[in-house]
Amino acid sequence: MNKDNTVFVGNKPVMNYVLAVVTQFSNGATEVIIKARGKAISRAVDTGEIALNRFLEGVRKKEIITSTEEIETDSGKTNVSSIEIVLTNVPL
Amino acid sequence: MNKDNTVFVGNKPVMNYVLAVVTQFSNGATEVIIKARGKAISRAVDTGEIALNRFLEGVRKKEIITSTEEIETDSGKTNVSSIEIVLTNVPL
Repeated sequence: MNKDNTVFVGNKPVMNYVLAVVTQFSNGATEVIIKARGKAISRAVDTGEIALNRFLEGVRKKEIITSTEEIETDSGKTNVSSIEIVLTNVPL
Repeated sequence: MNKDNTVFVGNKPVMNYVLAVVTQFSNGATEVIIKARGKAISRAVDTGEIALNRFLEGVRKKEIITSTEEIETDSGKTNVSSIEIVLTNVPL
């Protein structure tokens, strides 16, 4: 998997990330991964839903993975949830 | 699917929902669905991760589904993302 095919969702407006996903497919990607951690997870789901419902023909959700990541903060290690939504235009 | 096996995640502290999930399995459920909409989606993922990593032995994620729901608000209809995380203790 090419790292360039991953869209990291943060705190910007959701349409920024939708545009990034759509652009990846326009540029020939066959698979795009939407990733987010913590509170941005909701926005990652929004990104996938809006991209699929409004912009991308023939693209589908291939897989959705949730996991727990350990991150370093000023006050020590803490756990944060993460999500990966894998979109593909390869037919089933 | 028994409706009682669904845990709706909202704005309460995450451990409330973790406890609800763990209780369902303790009471004999073989499958529990964690559901949330909008900003609560992040907390639903947290609920599943914490329940699996800290409390539930032999339980796994069976399926994660995201979708778009249309809801009525004071200012008309609007779309909101939703997630369903299906946990099961049935071995693969």
